Amino acid sequence: MRVESDSMGTINVPSEKYYGAQTARSLANFDIGGEKMPTEIIRAFGILKKAAALANHKLGLMDLATRDLVVAAADEVIAGKLAEHFPLVVWQTGSGTQSNMNVNEVISNRAIEMAGGVMGSKKPVHPNDHVNMSQSSNDTYPTAMHIAAVEAIENYLVDRVMLLRNTLDAKATEFMGVVKIGRTHLQDATPLTLGQEISGWVAQLDLALKAIRATLPQLYELALGGTAVGTGLNAHPKYGETVAAEIATLTGQPFITAPNKFAVMAGHDAFVGSSGALKQLAAALMKIANDVRWLASGPRSGLGEITIPENEPGSSIMPGKVNPTQAEATTMVAVQVMGNDAAIGIAASQGNFELNVFKPVIAYNFLQSVRLLADAAKSFNDHCAVGIEPDRDRIKQLVDQSLMLVTALNRKIGYDNAAKIAKHAHKKRSTLRESAIELGLLTGEEFDAEVKPEQMVGPLKL
Amino acid sequence: MRVESDSMGTINVPSEKYYGAQTARSLANFDIGGEKMPTEIIRAFGILKKAAALANHKLGLMDLATRDLVVAAADEVIAGKLAEHFPLVVWQTGSGTQSNMNVNEVISNRAIEMAGGVMGSKKPVHPNDHVNMSQSSNDTYPTAMHIAAVEAIENYLVDRVMLLRNTLDAKATEFMGVVKIGRTHLQDATPLTLGQEISGWVAQLDLALKAIRATLPQLYELALGGTAVGTGLNAHPKYGETVAAEIATLTGQPFITAPNKFAVMAGHDAFVGSSGALKQLAAALMKIANDVRWLASGPRSGLGEITIPENEPGSSIMPGKVNPTQAEATTMVAVQVMGNDAAIGIAASQGNFELNVFKPVIAYNFLQSVRLLADAAKSFNDHCAVGIEPDRDRIKQLVDQSLMLVTALNRKIGYDNAAKIAKHAHKKRSTLRESAIELGLLTGEEFDAEVKPEQMVGPLKL
Amino acid sequence: MRVESDSMGTINVPSEKYYGAQTARSLANFDIGGEKMPTEIIRAFGILKKAAALANHKLGLMDLATRDLVVAAADEVIAGKLAEHFPLVVWQTGSGTQSNMNVNEVISNRAIEMAGGVMGSKKPVHPNDHVNMSQSSNDTYPTAMHIAAVEAIENYLVDRVMLLRNTLDAKATEFMGVVKIGRTHLQDATPLTLGQEISGWVAQLDLALKAIRATLPQLYELALGGTAVGTGLNAHPKYGETVAAEIATLTGQPFITAPNKFAVMAGHDAFVGSSGALKQLAAALMKIANDVRWLASGPRSGLGEITIPENEPGSSIMPGKVNPTQAEATTMVAVQVMGNDAAIGIAASQGNFELNVFKPVIAYNFLQSVRLLADAAKSFNDHCAVGIEPDRDRIKQLVDQSLMLVTALNRKIGYDNAAKIAKHAHKKRSTLRESAIELGLLTGEEFDAEVKPEQMVGPLKL
Amino acid sequence: MRVESDSMGTINVPSEKYYGAQTARSLANFDIGGEKMPTEIIRAFGILKKAAALANHKLGLMDLATRDLVVAAADEVIAGKLAEHFPLVVWQTGSGTQSNMNVNEVISNRAIEMAGGVMGSKKPVHPNDHVNMSQSSNDTYPTAMHIAAVEAIENYLVDRVMLLRNTLDAKATEFMGVVKIGRTHLQDATPLTLGQEISGWVAQLDLALKAIRATLPQLYELALGGTAVGTGLNAHPKYGETVAAEIATLTGQPFITAPNKFAVMAGHDAFVGSSGALKQLAAALMKIANDVRWLASGPRSGLGEITIPENEPGSSIMPGKVNPTQAEATTMVAVQVMGNDAAIGIAASQGNFELNVFKPVIAYNFLQSVRLLADAAKSFNDHCAVGIEPDRDRIKQLVDQSLMLVTALNRKIGYDNAAKIAKHAHKKRSTLRESAIELGLLTGEEFDAEVKPEQMVGPLKL
Repeated sequence: MRVESDSMGTINVPSEKYYGAQTARSLANFDIGGEKMPTEIIRAFGILKKAAALANHKLGLMDLATRDLVVAAADEVIAGKLAEHFPLVVWQTGSGTQSNMNVNEVISNRAIEMAGGVMGSKKPVHPNDHVNMSQSSNDTYPTAMHIAAVEAIENYLVDRVMLLRNTLDAKATEFMGVVKIGRTHLQDATPLTLGQEISGWVAQLDLALKAIRATLPQLYELALGGTAVGTGLNAHPKYGETVAAEIATLTGQPFITAPNKFAVMAGHDAFVGSSGALKQLAAALMKIANDVRWLASGPRSGLGEITIPENEPGSSIMPGKVNPTQAEATTMVAVQVMGNDAAIGIAASQGNFELNVFKPVIAYNFLQSVRLLADAAKSFNDHCAVGIEPDRDRIKQLVDQSLMLVTALNRKIGYDNAAKIAKHAHKKRSTLRESAIELGLLTGEEFDAEVKPEQMVGPLKL
Repeated sequence: MRVESDSMGTINVPSEKYYGAQTARSLANFDIGGEKMPTEIIRAFGILKKAAALANHKLGLMDLATRDLVVAAADEVIAGKLAEHFPLVVWQTGSGTQSNMNVNEVISNRAIEMAGGVMGSKKPVHPNDHVNMSQSSNDTYPTAMHIAAVEAIENYLVDRVMLLRNTLDAKATEFMGVVKIGRTHLQDATPLTLGQEISGWVAQLDLALKAIRATLPQLYELALGGTAVGTGLNAHPKYGETVAAEIATLTGQPFITAPNKFAVMAGHDAFVGSSGALKQLAAALMKIANDVRWLASGPRSGLGEITIPENEPGSSIMPGKVNPTQAEATTMVAVQVMGNDAAIGIAASQGNFELNVFKPVIAYNFLQSVRLLADAAKSFNDHCAVGIEPDRDRIKQLVDQSLMLVTALNRKIGYDNAAKIAKHAHKKRSTLRESAIELGLLTGEEFDAEVKPEQMVGPLKL
Repeated sequence: MRVESDSMGTINVPSEKYYGAQTARSLANFDIGGEKMPTEIIRAFGILKKAAALANHKLGLMDLATRDLVVAAADEVIAGKLAEHFPLVVWQTGSGTQSNMNVNEVISNRAIEMAGGVMGSKKPVHPNDHVNMSQSSNDTYPTAMHIAAVEAIENYLVDRVMLLRNTLDAKATEFMGVVKIGRTHLQDATPLTLGQEISGWVAQLDLALKAIRATLPQLYELALGGTAVGTGLNAHPKYGETVAAEIATLTGQPFITAPNKFAVMAGHDAFVGSSGALKQLAAALMKIANDVRWLASGPRSGLGEITIPENEPGSSIMPGKVNPTQAEATTMVAVQVMGNDAAIGIAASQGNFELNVFKPVIAYNFLQSVRLLADAAKSFNDHCAVGIEPDRDRIKQLVDQSLMLVTALNRKIGYDNAAKIAKHAHKKRSTLRESAIELGLLTGEEFDAEVKPEQMVGPLKL
Repeated sequence: MRVESDSMGTINVPSEKYYGAQTARSLANFDIGGEKMPTEIIRAFGILKKAAALANHKLGLMDLATRDLVVAAADEVIAGKLAEHFPLVVWQTGSGTQSNMNVNEVISNRAIEMAGGVMGSKKPVHPNDHVNMSQSSNDTYPTAMHIAAVEAIENYLVDRVMLLRNTLDAKATEFMGVVKIGRTHLQDATPLTLGQEISGWVAQLDLALKAIRATLPQLYELALGGTAVGTGLNAHPKYGETVAAEIATLTGQPFITAPNKFAVMAGHDAFVGSSGALKQLAAALMKIANDVRWLASGPRSGLGEITIPENEPGSSIMPGKVNPTQAEATTMVAVQVMGNDAAIGIAASQGNFELNVFKPVIAYNFLQSVRLLADAAKSFNDHCAVGIEPDRDRIKQLVDQSLMLVTALNRKIGYDNAAKIAKHAHKKRSTLRESAIELGLLTGEEFDAEVKPEQMVGPLKL
């Protein structure tokens, strides 16, 4: 153990850990749950602290040596090398102050170590005076939230959803000619092709991704430069713009300084809108995964129109019992995202005056939503969607026996006779073809010439 | 009573009502709650039916006389003149079929009446063959949802929120020089101006409106032309585009035909994203209304920094007890919108195959959210925000007695002496000025020269 | 118009209305939405005002003549005769003060009218001094919430859910011998009987009703007697107990005075727990309605194991297309209840000090949930559940062709041979019987002797 | 690595791990998020497997040696000694099958190790034939959910909430004589004592605990004995009762076998009701924590009626700035519980036929809610509630200057004169006493004799 200190006095800290007094106090004071501050937030803090050092140096507030030490230590935070030094839980100060201090302490001590100094001495790199220079917890934590959210969406989520989207798009193309029965109200309806059905899933994913990205501009606005209450007290007047530009450069994302700092420190409403868009994706995935498992239901007593990969034992005795486990994981994730969205909405509404103190719970739920959606999309893609295959016999059998095809006969024999055929077939449990012949309204050949499901899957031919 | 008929047979209908058999059946079958199909949906259906008649005529499918009759009756629906003829509740078929039929029946019978025909005869304007031509409930109801949502946002919500936004913006400008204490964690913090504080509210509203409008492009995509299952069966191949263009013209909104009809009939995910943006506005209003009522709390034992209009008796005996009732109505509305958003998310996720059958519950919740947000914003504006006035004495007293101002002395007497003054003042419950003098660290004049709250409300002066 | 007055002065009121100045002000100040204060609340206020008059008289605070006038007018409120005189919306003061005053004003003026006095004169029955005697809005509104909630559950909901429960219970008994395929993960599984399946729905409803009633004790605790802040200031020390006893007598429900008034005026947590139990019922109904519509799906390409009543035209051309519209209405209601529950939870958490000012939004959502659940249960019962019939041929066909029945052969021919039969049948799309014969492992007679689905629907026979 | 096998073939498993093939497959197939199956579920599975072995032995289905091996290994699972062998995430098969198999595999291999056998050999203790004897995933996982939920509530939550409840109860008693201003609508109201105010918090916690425990009977009903689809296929007819009795003995909780197994395997509605009761506790904690932080707000410009412990540096420069961080953590937890409740409600509603496949997401959210509520209650108690102290000077100052006390003068000088005093005081910003003297209506002595706040904190004295 070594001794670390803050304004409340000294406290023992494990000697192998870079964190300091305030982190140690938080560990003692907040023994609540086990959910750690998300790693995306820690990484974002690394970027933020590096950008702050670069900006402070540019504005003449920090010397080159200190800047370089802070940057070097921050780079290790960004790279995830110091993960074990960030032990704090989500359920702490609502401003995330303690995680900001955790980062300050770790970067300070790691920089001190690099410089050959004594950990805990705060020399030559002081956690407050240097690492936290021109900052307050109140503007750093929301800035880290925005950085983490944008990175998570752009660098993690989009690719994984696109993977699934592209797989489905290829399936849609491949199966564009597979005519199948349509279903509305779960009831048999006019036909469409399997490719058309899957194209709807693709379009839902496209809409959801568009919706998510349409919310990013709000997240590009950073609070940094607002300091304690949004006024920018003690900060250089060019600090906000300068540090936002550094963060934009480091991340490759178009971050800007928020035109109004009060709103982004006290509100976090942007996360409500963005989480709503994530929920849109969740709703789309729920629908898609449900369709997949229903279409694959069976093997005998379900719909059975598609088959999906068998990834684990379904039943030791019954061949063909392939449980749609990837669909189940995906729909559970969708439900979780809906719960998370509820929490985010409440939390974001509870700001008072110059600060919203529900920041960590917002970050936790938002980043969990992004991560779960991304992982579920990839897992569902890799272990299920790629292996979707039509059961062409079953599909043909269902569409051929459909009573709905009778609509094709209206022009030839009139609505009343067509209805007669359908009703007779329903009563006798026969096919339309059999019914037509039995009623003497059409020969088999005439029936076949008129009733072509593949010509019922688009608008009128002119 | 007169007799109306549908494919199930005949049924009696009140003779003074334009609706027909299917509406009458729905009334009998769905005696659930009392929540009527939103009037915005009925109006949207009017627009849709008019546009459909125009498009069908353009495409050579409907003669001019029929078109003009349908248009004339639809115009009355649009104008809200036939409200009493739409008695159906939200809790009906999940496709909204019965409300589509209700509209078909009303337009048919009203058109028949205009043409001097016999109501219920379906001549010369047939509810299905003419009013519903080239349509299915499955593509009309979602189209009506989109039209209603866009109109409600653009024509009803935006103006009312802008009213409040502009009032607050004017207040922000007016009070930009009123220096007051800042509060973070509900605790005293460094000062800002009342104008700055209010500017944060304005920015929150601006962000929310931007967020809401960023979701509109999804709502511009119309399902019409998809007919029963999204394939466009029985529709003219140019019908989707043609009717969307008519709707765009009639509404002045940039509606287009959805590139993929399957997604917009089976999904409704767009409403999830849009409702998320409405929830963002709700969260912003909750924060603003909470700030207002806290700042106006008192008259003696609260914060008391602002006064708000007294609209009704607060207490018969206690002058000055002005209950913040407009803030209360507004926050209740915010809570309702959060509940509605939860319902919308679940409902939108429950589509199967070619249809989502939770359409009316989505429409009901979405349009209630829009209406309540708009009305609350206007009410809060008219009866509260316009009358917000600072209690300048109280504000000055609070900021002057703040211990936080001690930070201004750091440069002059050093951090340690500054802290000494603050701690002494806290212990003695004296002012910083008294404490500074008592400790012999500064004269009153020196103190006054250094401690100027109005110079603490922005970044460093360079 | 006539002139009414309150402490803010005079205001015009329509002469045919019994309400007075404060109601008129509220109408002007809260033009938000159109959702009226629930009629259950108005009725509960009638009961409360009557009970208060009786209690005040018993305690010697109100003379007999006044008591009788208040009681007579309150009786009309209870009976719903004065509905048009309660025009206020939900989105008003968060304490419901204006609805309390609305009731005071209506009872006062109606009593005055009965006494032959001049409306608006407040003589001989004063809205505050008499109708509101020993009360404050702060303790009356929550009391009305509790009365309304208990009555809605006990007198409206329970019966309607029991109706459905008993119908299903009879169906369970009737179909206890109908052996059908089981489904887990939507996949074919070992058999059970249709009666067993339906018995699960019955048990879910029983559990939900038990859960709901287990929350009633909290709702029996009434705030009345707490007056303005819970201390009972200005109330007779026996008032709380006395008035609770009167309310218990009038309603036949075991209401008591809350042992701690502060909690029930500032909290409303009881509604969170009770709404959670309503949500349990919603979840049960969602599952039941989903099962019903899936089992009735088809007629050809769905599961088709049961048929349900056809209440309205499903499709004009396709016989047998019975859309499960009652199931759809029911699941939409379930979703609404989930949204309402979200709103209630947030609202109930937002109390401050001596008052929660989200009372009307809690009452509105709670009572809507009760009403919709009750109505949906009855509608689903009357128009769907009573007509559920098994399609015995289809059910038999599905269970007979099930590969899962092979487990019955383990004892006779060993696990390996049994699996061989199943795999062969799956590959050849044949029946197990055909497969067994084809593989030469069993004769048809031997197969029939062993594979008896009806013996697979319970535990081992010892 | 060693080789393990299941019905899909062989797979490599780390040799130091007890788990087998199906766990290894799940790790590969479900790389989603990082949320592990809750340890409470693993422990509950240990109890369940032990009870199953005991019951199977009692019923003559398992020999003594095997039973003892299973029991010995299960005891280590119960004790938490094998935590590292349960690596699976929540987002897996919706029936929790893979976690059931994980437990089967670990107990099997650990028992084999104890018996000196070869891990992976499945001898002498087979994961399916012995550890899973008379069970199916479909009845074990919901049983584990119920055991885990009851244990978490009874053994973890109740004590921690009672700790806080008792601390507050002692504070209520201690401060029962501290007369303070009441606040309704955030506005000054008639007085009460600090003890009364706190007694309301105690009553809220009591109500919430009662509500939670009232939901336990539903959780006592166990699915075990239902096997695959609820019929009990392949189970001994006395198995359900026998194993439930064993579980009751092992846990000391009154578990019983569910009278209807179909409902508890396909529904999980009980968790909706129980989670609703947890949400009730969350709402209560939100209210309490909000009251505490508002009452402690300041030190100068807030309400400042109480002080709370300073646990970490609030501000390096401002003495007295004690951020209410425990209140913040508690309210964040409350928000999380509300989000979790939303997820649970949706998940529980999504069962189909004989199975609900959202089991792990329900368990995850429910147990997180319990854990967070318990931990937050304890943390809030230990680090905040125990140190709540009134600032008696401030409290007296606020109550003394309150205009609301004027009501005490009604009897002496009449309502009109009393109102005159209050209005004058409000206008002049003077005290009521000063105002009364200034207006010549009362002497100071007379005023003091009449206006005694401490006599305004209860009902009329008779």
